[in-house]
Amino acid sequence: MSVELEKKITDFRELLEKRDMHALREFLLPINEVDIALLIENTSREESALVFRLLPKEIAADVFANLPIENQQNLIEAFSEREVGEMINALYVDDAVDLLEEMPANFVQRILRQVGSGRREVINHFLRYEEDSAGSLMTAEMIHLRSEMTVGEAIQRVRDYGEYCEVINTGYVTLPDRVLEGYISLRTLLTSSDDELVGDLMETDVISARTGDDQEEVAHLFSRYDLLSLPVVDNENRLVGIITIDDVVDVIQEEATEDIEKMAAIVPSEESYLRTGAFTQARHRVGWLLFLMLSGILNGIILQHYEAAFLAMPILVSFVPMLTDTGGNAGSQSSTLVVRGLSLNEISTRDFWKVFWKEFQVSLLVSAVLGTVNFLQIGLRNDHNWMLALTVSLALTAIVILSKLVGGTLPLVAKKLRLDPAIMAAPLITTIVDAIGLIVYFAVATMLLQI
Amino acid sequence: MSVELEKKITDFRELLEKRDMHALREFLLPINEVDIALLIENTSREESALVFRLLPKEIAADVFANLPIENQQNLIEAFSEREVGEMINALYVDDAVDLLEEMPANFVQRILRQVGSGRREVINHFLRYEEDSAGSLMTAEMIHLRSEMTVGEAIQRVRDYGEYCEVINTGYVTLPDRVLEGYISLRTLLTSSDDELVGDLMETDVISARTGDDQEEVAHLFSRYDLLSLPVVDNENRLVGIITIDDVVDVIQEEATEDIEKMAAIVPSEESYLRTGAFTQARHRVGWLLFLMLSGILNGIILQHYEAAFLAMPILVSFVPMLTDTGGNAGSQSSTLVVRGLSLNEISTRDFWKVFWKEFQVSLLVSAVLGTVNFLQIGLRNDHNWMLALTVSLALTAIVILSKLVGGTLPLVAKKLRLDPAIMAAPLITTIVDAIGLIVYFAVATMLLQI
Repeated sequence: MSVELEKKITDFRELLEKRDMHALREFLLPINEVDIALLIENTSREESALVFRLLPKEIAADVFANLPIENQQNLIEAFSEREVGEMINALYVDDAVDLLEEMPANFVQRILRQVGSGRREVINHFLRYEEDSAGSLMTAEMIHLRSEMTVGEAIQRVRDYGEYCEVINTGYVTLPDRVLEGYISLRTLLTSSDDELVGDLMETDVISARTGDDQEEVAHLFSRYDLLSLPVVDNENRLVGIITIDDVVDVIQEEATEDIEKMAAIVPSEESYLRTGAFTQARHRVGWLLFLMLSGILNGIILQHYEAAFLAMPILVSFVPMLTDTGGNAGSQSSTLVVRGLSLNEISTRDFWKVFWKEFQVSLLVSAVLGTVNFLQIGLRNDHNWMLALTVSLALTAIVILSKLVGGTLPLVAKKLRLDPAIMAAPLITTIVDAIGLIVYFAVATMLLQI
Repeated sequence: MSVELEKKITDFRELLEKRDMHALREFLLPINEVDIALLIENTSREESALVFRLLPKEIAADVFANLPIENQQNLIEAFSEREVGEMINALYVDDAVDLLEEMPANFVQRILRQVGSGRREVINHFLRYEEDSAGSLMTAEMIHLRSEMTVGEAIQRVRDYGEYCEVINTGYVTLPDRVLEGYISLRTLLTSSDDELVGDLMETDVISARTGDDQEEVAHLFSRYDLLSLPVVDNENRLVGIITIDDVVDVIQEEATEDIEKMAAIVPSEESYLRTGAFTQARHRVGWLLFLMLSGILNGIILQHYEAAFLAMPILVSFVPMLTDTGGNAGSQSSTLVVRGLSLNEISTRDFWKVFWKEFQVSLLVSAVLGTVNFLQIGLRNDHNWMLALTVSLALTAIVILSKLVGGTLPLVAKKLRLDPAIMAAPLITTIVDAIGLIVYFAVATMLLQI
């Protein structure tokens, strides 16, 4: 947190405790809505309602949209139904929908009665889109144009309606039946002369999403085409809403966090670490740990199977953690790179053999280095027992090659089978690779050392 | 890749092979610059120069900016110096700087001679900012306003200069000495009446970055305040450039990828998986594997130390992989959550005790479940040897608690010591936790089982 922000927090608390409402209002007016939300976040329910009523309506709506959901719910409870209705009216549709999605259904219906009928219809419609779909991200406020408008008329429309739109960079051109024809950037409008026609200037190679598309797909389009907003159409190519870049930035962060959590064998959570209670955290972590622990029984059985070998030569046991850890690390390097590549759309399931070949080459190079170092290290530390050194190093080489091949290709197989690559690959890889590693190790040992 | 895009590729190849340059031009004109870049990416050097010269200058510059660096270099080699100079002139400053940064210094100087002197100065200046700093991300083209301008004059300025700016959403208001005074959104300009003064309408609570700020900080500001662009100032608060959201989306993806790679014990790479050769890949992976392998010697020594214990009771060995894997998994769950929280600015080093306490609670809950299941499982599978079951389960409980505490706090310690939390925490955690786990296990076993 910056020094200025900390100062704002102190000043805010002081004014609030003095209940100096006039000074408080003057203090808050120049501050960014995101920071006002931060100030309100740590006040009691009564205080936040008090502060909230000081704010002009448009600022209040923006501040509200930036509050965490618990604070929103607290405020809603402190408000009258009419006040809540006004708030929903002042929010952009996507923010209103985000809020209402978290509320009990009968409450939503009661609130929507306070909202204008046109807007109510839109919100009701938007509430039906699945979470994480393009439909759930979009908002309804946008610049609507017609191809027969002149540039002057179009600019006038932006000036008339711009205030109600989240992003005004792009005007969307539709036919009378709302079918999307093209788009034109505000920059093009402003740098053209007033009497030109929108239809002559607009771009017709429109990049759009369908309401049911996954939000990850939407994020790919934004980052691929450097978009600020994206039109969303229904199955008849009719424009139903737009998605704006600020929501996509959140999606990108969310999706990366989700992948990271899955790869670390955690059930992803929407809330941040400090906001999630210990019980929920435990619930999100215990499942995979339990599964992985029980799958460890397999490794126990393999070890028991080779009991005679390690009783004959107890030193063999001391290399087990090193071999299984190296296998696990080598495998998870590969699976991580492939999972991330899939998420960023840089790798597709069609690249199976490319990935296989690359991992094979990499594993040869890597295992040559690891095997050599290991050979020398073991031989020198164990009275020049070079046969032992050779056994462990050969096993290590085989384990690294197998781990990298399994690690690199398993996510692609998962994706092909429509399973989640991040879940299938990373947490499972260690168990699989451990089992392979132990079998290889003792097979090599019984062969080379004649035990 | 979408079906339409695949069709474009086929059509493009056909026209190119027929060398039908007129039809090719007509075919390319309506296509998005990002997609044209994709089409050119897979052509030979001669073909790409051929296609490139068909494109109008502004489109060519945009296409060029979207090509991978190897293709850019190929094209540059096929061009005359004058052509390259024209290209640099047509690119936005940030894209031109990105290109020149990859070129040999003497080549850069030769090219810059072809560029207008004012622009040359700006580019030379920008080339001096460190990679991954705010300065390296910024561009020079922006809407400059003065507080004494009227709205009408400001809009006219946008109409005159908008064409040359990457983002026109926001006008920046400066004093004559370039000190940043405030900003005003294009929306506010367009929805206000022509004779109002910019100074009366502008926001003065400016969010800005300094040229030396890290790009991760910049990304936090964009996602926190939902920005489309951010002004960058020098130490005297003079405006030197702006950063636009499209570059920040790339930074967010890059930073997440970097964290993911570090946590998987890989040296991060700028290039995508398929574009990185096997040799480079191996180089990025072998270092950590080698280090982790050698640190595994420690575990070997611990195991050798307890040789008497497991020779007296060989079954103890069969639980070693399960115990170390579970410890590793439990620890990396915690370290992953904390590392991600640090990256997203949701956790700071001041939260040390909060994290410690949360991990302690979570580890109690999780280890209670794991310990119980394990106790029953081992007892039932080993002729009701409940003493053995108790030994392993107590060790497991202790290992999970210790792993979670170490995993949760190590990234914070690393951050405090100005080391990289992602590197310090995730790859190291397994080795540390393995050693702790083995010592705890055999300590408990020698105590409870009297061996």
